[in-house]
Amino acid sequence: MTPGNLAIPSVSRQIILAKRPEGMPKESDFSMAEAPLPQLGAGQVLVRALYLSVDPYVRGRLTGQNSYVKGIQPGEVITGGVAGQVVESGDPRLAGGDIVEGILGWQEYAVAQAKNLRKVDPAAGPISTALYVLGMPGLTAYFGLLEICRPQAGETVVVSGAAGAVGSLVGQIAKIKRCRAIGVAGSDEKVRYLTGELGFDGAFNYKESSDYYGSLKELCPNGIDVYFDNVGGEITDAAVRLLNTRARIGVCGQISQYNLEEPQIGPRWLGQLIVKQARAEGFLVTQFADRHEDGYRHLATWLRQNRIQYREDIVEGLENAPRAFIGMLEGANIGKRLVKIAG
Amino acid sequence: MTPGNLAIPSVSRQIILAKRPEGMPKESDFSMAEAPLPQLGAGQVLVRALYLSVDPYVRGRLTGQNSYVKGIQPGEVITGGVAGQVVESGDPRLAGGDIVEGILGWQEYAVAQAKNLRKVDPAAGPISTALYVLGMPGLTAYFGLLEICRPQAGETVVVSGAAGAVGSLVGQIAKIKRCRAIGVAGSDEKVRYLTGELGFDGAFNYKESSDYYGSLKELCPNGIDVYFDNVGGEITDAAVRLLNTRARIGVCGQISQYNLEEPQIGPRWLGQLIVKQARAEGFLVTQFADRHEDGYRHLATWLRQNRIQYREDIVEGLENAPRAFIGMLEGANIGKRLVKIAG
Repeated sequence: MTPGNLAIPSVSRQIILAKRPEGMPKESDFSMAEAPLPQLGAGQVLVRALYLSVDPYVRGRLTGQNSYVKGIQPGEVITGGVAGQVVESGDPRLAGGDIVEGILGWQEYAVAQAKNLRKVDPAAGPISTALYVLGMPGLTAYFGLLEICRPQAGETVVVSGAAGAVGSLVGQIAKIKRCRAIGVAGSDEKVRYLTGELGFDGAFNYKESSDYYGSLKELCPNGIDVYFDNVGGEITDAAVRLLNTRARIGVCGQISQYNLEEPQIGPRWLGQLIVKQARAEGFLVTQFADRHEDGYRHLATWLRQNRIQYREDIVEGLENAPRAFIGMLEGANIGKRLVKIAG
Repeated sequence: MTPGNLAIPSVSRQIILAKRPEGMPKESDFSMAEAPLPQLGAGQVLVRALYLSVDPYVRGRLTGQNSYVKGIQPGEVITGGVAGQVVESGDPRLAGGDIVEGILGWQEYAVAQAKNLRKVDPAAGPISTALYVLGMPGLTAYFGLLEICRPQAGETVVVSGAAGAVGSLVGQIAKIKRCRAIGVAGSDEKVRYLTGELGFDGAFNYKESSDYYGSLKELCPNGIDVYFDNVGGEITDAAVRLLNTRARIGVCGQISQYNLEEPQIGPRWLGQLIVKQARAEGFLVTQFADRHEDGYRHLATWLRQNRIQYREDIVEGLENAPRAFIGMLEGANIGKRLVKIAG
């Protein structure tokens, strides 16, 4: 079941953790390695990576502390979502040539259990969308906004990290649900992208603002009903002060905190949740696993109807994955940052 | 409709705000005044106060900032729940001699709209319970724990301010729901009260602990599923570190913060809500107004069945209300602090 055009390799190049990053990761914290590929067992497939997703959550895995999953140890392959093509299959559910998506890590080839892979319909969109609108970031935006934050038509939805993979979708889904969508992002170009191409009702560049509260207040004259937080820190402090009664904070990410060696301190604002009768809820996309198909279906429909726009920020070559990852942590990307591995 | 034993007064003594407190209130921030009582209009009743409730939320009303309700201005009567007796009624729903409960303020007599008063069944318990187990603190514990925190049998419930009016009920309702109840309180006597009289599974005196996290961890070997927070600050920081997956924080009060002139700073921990997929939700008892009868019914049943124990800490005389209030803010009370006004 090997497609004729794909040779079966015996080794795979991979990016491993060289040493634990201190603060913002450096390229020297990663190194390239080569590993032999095991023989396929029953139920297994060999996948050739086409696109690799670099995601903020991976920063947490590099610390050596276990949180909701085990951390990555030095010498181990870096975690990452991959969209790839089946080269050889030992499982009847998949055939050579099929496009699949799964957590295969930063490597060119991977042997995986077929049951842990999702078969991707190439007709639904370009293969790379399996890592974005029709992948984990899409589901995160979909379930995080609709299930955790439950926006109602006419409400004001603020999203931080708004030009990133998840944030850019959150704002657009908020618009589909007839909310006012306001974005916080880190460059004027991102702000123009949000209000120009994506249809956000407003956005501001926090790097040019000395008063996050004032900037948000101007954009949210009726207060904030939903705050979808990808960033944390002072932007969140400001948003909390503008919450309306019964507001909801969906805590998706805290990228401002991920590269700190010590917890940052900030004003305590839990009392605000009382007076506003408001809620802050953290979530992981995995908690909606039994409803992912629902999410994919809605996202695919909106994509087909042109109600969701997206931009990819593609870096070429596995060897550039560390640089792509670090840049994403620094906010260099607009839309989804991906690494093109092959194809 | 005046009961024979009650004379109709023309003036009422009352406690007014003399000046806005800075930090912990002082007795000199309050003063005694005398105000003429208006003629009863249709639908109104004249109530003689028997017991006055002094509650933490009142501290917020003294700041001059409006939060969910308007703040108290200098010269105005201090807000407070009162259980009292109807002296004269201009409304067919109430008759002289009836026992009622309502927000009548720190004064000996008040004229109020009958529709804003709750008629109390004297058979359900001593009159003072209308301000405690069968009153606002009871409903706060009931709905805050059961509706906001949704404890499941076998889960660990931690409550801060555990020996206070709300906290002492939260732990007992947690036990009724077959949870493990752990209290945090501010004296060894309170700890003995919680574990001895109220049936808490464990408690610690935070004033004698140099390591809140360690103290909590020892009492919660299986982590924390529900944290009912009356206090905030460093106790909350410690509890957050012990949250289990899908834990719930009910944010009821933040008494450690109420007397601060500037927001306290502390470690940012919103990221913990993500990895634990946990939720922090603030609430006010008023949001459950349409279900209060349900709450009263359950609380009355548990009280009758002796499944809820309670202790009152009664200060005599309206003139001592400021002192009673300040002591409550300082944690002097075990159980509900009340001021006996008459009767």
